[in-house]
Amino acid sequence: MAASPLKVCIVGSGNWGSAVAKIIGNNVKKFEKFASVVKMWVFEETVNGRKLTDIINNDHENVKYLPGHKLPENVFIHRICDEISGKVPKGALGISLIKGIDEGPEGLKLISDIIREKMGIDISVLMGANTANEVASGKFCETTIGSKVTENGLLFKELLQTPDFLITVVDDADTVELCGALKNTVAMEAGFCDGLHCGDNTKAAVIRLGLMEMIAFTRIFCKGQVSTATFLESCGIADLITTCCGGRNRKVAEAFARAGRTIEELEREMLNGQKLQGPQTSAEMYRILKQKGLLDKFPLFTAVYQICYEGRPVQEMLSCLQRHPEHI
Amino acid sequence: MAASPLKVCIVGSGNWGSAVAKIIGNNVKKFEKFASVVKMWVFEETVNGRKLTDIINNDHENVKYLPGHKLPENVFIHRICDEISGKVPKGALGISLIKGIDEGPEGLKLISDIIREKMGIDISVLMGANTANEVASGKFCETTIGSKVTENGLLFKELLQTPDFLITVVDDADTVELCGALKNTVAMEAGFCDGLHCGDNTKAAVIRLGLMEMIAFTRIFCKGQVSTATFLESCGIADLITTCCGGRNRKVAEAFARAGRTIEELEREMLNGQKLQGPQTSAEMYRILKQKGLLDKFPLFTAVYQICYEGRPVQEMLSCLQRHPEHI
Repeated sequence: MAASPLKVCIVGSGNWGSAVAKIIGNNVKKFEKFASVVKMWVFEETVNGRKLTDIINNDHENVKYLPGHKLPENVFIHRICDEISGKVPKGALGISLIKGIDEGPEGLKLISDIIREKMGIDISVLMGANTANEVASGKFCETTIGSKVTENGLLFKELLQTPDFLITVVDDADTVELCGALKNTVAMEAGFCDGLHCGDNTKAAVIRLGLMEMIAFTRIFCKGQVSTATFLESCGIADLITTCCGGRNRKVAEAFARAGRTIEELEREMLNGQKLQGPQTSAEMYRILKQKGLLDKFPLFTAVYQICYEGRPVQEMLSCLQRHPEHI
Repeated sequence: MAASPLKVCIVGSGNWGSAVAKIIGNNVKKFEKFASVVKMWVFEETVNGRKLTDIINNDHENVKYLPGHKLPENVFIHRICDEISGKVPKGALGISLIKGIDEGPEGLKLISDIIREKMGIDISVLMGANTANEVASGKFCETTIGSKVTENGLLFKELLQTPDFLITVVDDADTVELCGALKNTVAMEAGFCDGLHCGDNTKAAVIRLGLMEMIAFTRIFCKGQVSTATFLESCGIADLITTCCGGRNRKVAEAFARAGRTIEELEREMLNGQKLQGPQTSAEMYRILKQKGLLDKFPLFTAVYQICYEGRPVQEMLSCLQRHPEHI
């Protein structure tokens, strides 16, 4: 008797969830191992007088989110886990595509850990240089799956890989997930740099020193079990490059350095009031680093927090570069 | 009796040599260990009816090269070594700031090896994300010195470091030097990508896979003695980012992919006939890889050569990505 096919469910329907739904919907048709119907949980909304679920079910298009915005993921994940936990079988496997971190009582908390704890299932993560619209239009890219159980990572690779969406599986899952969150803070630095007209050399130095702080922070958080090679995967340098050269964190940070307005004002003007991930992540890191007495080892991450929330002049980022611990 | 001060001589006066002369000229005044007069060898030319050496000596400005072009370094280095060898004391120390590689009878040859052999002195190298004009105007950047004799590297660090030009010394000198040459070939791929309107995800993948080929090529050339960490220094990812986002190799490659003209035509139109380093380096790599039967392990480097010199359609770069050995 053949094993019954694996049922796939996508939770979330922002632009990224919708782009991935397109890949998964095509892939399950190719492999008998997967059930051919894929369910997608959608946060119900009314769009032009119709329910969003109706539009997706009938028009097969997420008219609202594929060209557009993202839900506030952290709020979302707590609520959705509460809603669906208990309805998911014990042997189910999950994979988080959410780039961000949350705060727990003891400091930083990975989104995958929240899901793992709330739902009691194994969770992998997928992160990389994957702008949703480009993935949806089939432009070539790579991505990284981090999975503590290699065979689960390989199963998700089967489900998600296409000739234009190539996947590397690594076991360093926490590193992969932290890359996806921390790069947004480096993108803020890169945007400040652009706003201050620092030039290409300085921006490259900011990105590199930001990466060094990402590696050092990950070593502290993961207590040493970190492979440098993971930072050379798509989740590391590739995502960092796209985020620091394009991306909305970089863009708002550039406007901030030029305009002298607050981050909140710019979020209202440039993002319809949505929150940037870079400053939020820097705040979560700041609290952890302060508590551990390590702020001086992370001058760039610290500067992003202080510039965004404490009125530190953006120009002072440059003196952080000159005194960076990588050069002491 | 104090040791007599170390005399510093700069050979070459292109934009990069001139930018570094500005740093060295200021630094030797600060340290008694260095003689306060710095000599600079200049390739003599007539500019607006005056000798270039006269202009530099009298006006303290390289009117021709600091805002402008670069000499063809490979030709230059053979000739200058022949001219000055025998006139340099045995205990002298050299440092090469030339980003490029040459060909010897047994394949690829490092510029530092040519100088070392012709002059019989120890040679370090300095490479990084160091656009000359930005260095000259004192914008912050980092750079990497590779030195097989650490104390020589540290001496050059003393000579060259400023608060806005921060130096890391590593012993992996051949890796540092290869980074400076190979990145120009990756920049060609990045430029093709821009010309084909591939998008940010694809470009990030091209840069990352290009870096993987740089690492793999360096491992072959240096016979295994290669530290991945060196690719995380300024000479590695930082220089790669600036070169793939700005830089003339990227720019001409973009025009090539859009315009359907030859590289030679574009060099005439866009660079006054100067030769691009990326295609030349790809040709040198191609011959070595072909001889070793390794072309299929380096599909992007191989594609750059074939696209530039053998009429392979530039669009085929995309199929090289899909079949890249990093994903097999």
